Amino acid sequence: SVLQKGADGRKFLDLGKKRRAQLSDFKGTMYLDIREYYETNGELRPGKKGISITQEQWNLLKDNASTIDSLFNKAAKKR
Amino acid sequence: SVLQKGADGRKFLDLGKKRRAQLSDFKGTMYLDIREYYETNGELRPGKKGISITQEQWNLLKDNASTIDSLFNKAAKKR
Repeated sequence: SVLQKGADGRKFLDLGKKRRAQLSDFKGTMYLDIREYYETNGELRPGKKGISITQEQWNLLKDNASTIDSLFNKAAKKR
Repeated sequence: SVLQKGADGRKFLDLGKKRRAQLSDFKGTMYLDIREYYETNGELRPGKKGISITQEQWNLLKDNASTIDSLFNKAAKKR
């Protein structure tokens, strides 16, 4: 799998630059947490930069991926 | 388009619950900013909950969308 396992045993997708995407459970609801980690005492801990989005919000991002891609592409052309 | 226009004229994807996904320019590099907004004086302003991800990180999320979906689905089955 492309997923890695964190010190806490949870699977995450490594986004690079100490950023991870992983499922998190908050009060019985699952969220996709996209977050930057920081190193302390040789351990990586979740930092403040990040957001936990609902599955519905994740689906909205997925469903509009081509729109988001074209925003990136338009911005690149303006250079 | 599915995109809306914010008070600042920038286009955003409404994720619901005052959350938006939109492109942001930081020092000449474009990021996808996924962020929660809050209302103040009748205006919506960007809050602390959020993260700006690079296009590369966005592509990683897209490329691994089915893996993320299956994590959500597995978690749902455990109920």
